[in-house]
Amino acid sequence: MTQAAKFRALHQGPELLVLPNAWDAGSARLVETCGAKAIATSSAAVAWAHGYADGEQLPTATLLATVREILRVATVPVSVDLEGGYHAEPEGIADLIAAVLEAGAVGVNLEDGRGAPELLAAKIGVARRVAARVGRELFVNARTDVYLKNLAEGEAAVAETLRRAAIYRAAGTDGLFVPAVVAPAEIAAITAGAQLPVNVLVRANLPSVAELQRLGVRRLSAGCALTEMTLALARRATRELLESGTYRTLFAEVIPFPEINGWFKRD
Amino acid sequence: MTQAAKFRALHQGPELLVLPNAWDAGSARLVETCGAKAIATSSAAVAWAHGYADGEQLPTATLLATVREILRVATVPVSVDLEGGYHAEPEGIADLIAAVLEAGAVGVNLEDGRGAPELLAAKIGVARRVAARVGRELFVNARTDVYLKNLAEGEAAVAETLRRAAIYRAAGTDGLFVPAVVAPAEIAAITAGAQLPVNVLVRANLPSVAELQRLGVRRLSAGCALTEMTLALARRATRELLESGTYRTLFAEVIPFPEINGWFKRD
Repeated sequence: MTQAAKFRALHQGPELLVLPNAWDAGSARLVETCGAKAIATSSAAVAWAHGYADGEQLPTATLLATVREILRVATVPVSVDLEGGYHAEPEGIADLIAAVLEAGAVGVNLEDGRGAPELLAAKIGVARRVAARVGRELFVNARTDVYLKNLAEGEAAVAETLRRAAIYRAAGTDGLFVPAVVAPAEIAAITAGAQLPVNVLVRANLPSVAELQRLGVRRLSAGCALTEMTLALARRATRELLESGTYRTLFAEVIPFPEINGWFKRD
Repeated sequence: MTQAAKFRALHQGPELLVLPNAWDAGSARLVETCGAKAIATSSAAVAWAHGYADGEQLPTATLLATVREILRVATVPVSVDLEGGYHAEPEGIADLIAAVLEAGAVGVNLEDGRGAPELLAAKIGVARRVAARVGRELFVNARTDVYLKNLAEGEAAVAETLRRAAIYRAAGTDGLFVPAVVAPAEIAAITAGAQLPVNVLVRANLPSVAELQRLGVRRLSAGCALTEMTLALARRATRELLESGTYRTLFAEVIPFPEINGWFKRD
């Protein structure tokens, strides 16, 4: 079974695919050792690691280098968050899609943001054609930002999400990502109407994985939550070191050096 | 005052230079926002981020890309951990030293490991000549692994450390790094005899910064401790997500998205 086939099968339920998103090769190995069945990147977390704000500021060469580093060490399928494809024009994303496939990734996220759904639909079409041209299977996850960008609320948000789901489905998407939806009734209405595997984003007030599964969700992403959390701890330990001159936080809970070092094969 | 002059001055006391080592551009900005006066990389933490074990496995092109990314966002002086220079022969480290200086770094760590002190002395000489040739100031920090590799113990370790300090001083080092020494009496004997600014490594049982300052230490490095700590938390949150399907750890303490995003300038 190819990585692409494995990744596709992970969306077919009944078990929900949980993705603790990675930002570099080290975090990819970490989540793998915890039992993650696939690795997905978070665009924000990858951008931050390299010193860039989120929002397609990161040079695509740097993004591709990170994807190659993750694929060098990963043993499970890898999907890449491409934001809007790092290009305003649909045809402009073709080279990036080809490069991500060439690197060995089997999935991509493409998002609409504040753009017209027809633009994302055209990008999905380009991704499909590039995958066919290079002869690789690709799972396209279409992200709609109806909730994330507050483009609508309540029943209107559900309706707009389902309207877009139909457009993206017609364009050839394999999945629908709806970050920032948290209300169980709205999640249930979306999974019932989307006719696509639905992906939601971890939030403090999101229903648990067990409840999401009952609501019909097929994929859950942590997004940049792991980075927001680890940087908070790193800040607390750094402040203690710089301000109090002590190391309590630094050593309260660690993975020993040899254990981390052992995650990485030697060429 | 140049970054190189600032970095040199930070070793002249009486205040101890505390370095919460970084592994990428994001962690570099994090420690800067906490008030770190300089940024130093940890070779292990950088290697892990890119999916390599520590010990000169990381391609130097990747190391240099990381250094450039850190220097793109840093406003304080930057020093780079070069392990043994990624080359067994002294002359073999020249190109890497030149590239690190060209990137804008003002300090390097070079280590003896299990090698003869004469080898590290020769490498220090190469680093000095390269810096002179390209016309840049460089703070060379010579790391001796007498303690880290258990090459000697107690008084014999102090004596061997001071013997090596004299060799590295004669070769032109600017500082002496003695990781894994923790006993106050041994630290005091080393700072009294080294005739160089002495750098020690954070350990759970190391005396506090205030005590280290009284013992004559001029620089304290966290090494890979921040990474060992953050990966432990990331593992706990990932396990909770994958095994319990809940998000308590993920949201217990975070830095909000807009705050992290604001650390990075847009080109």
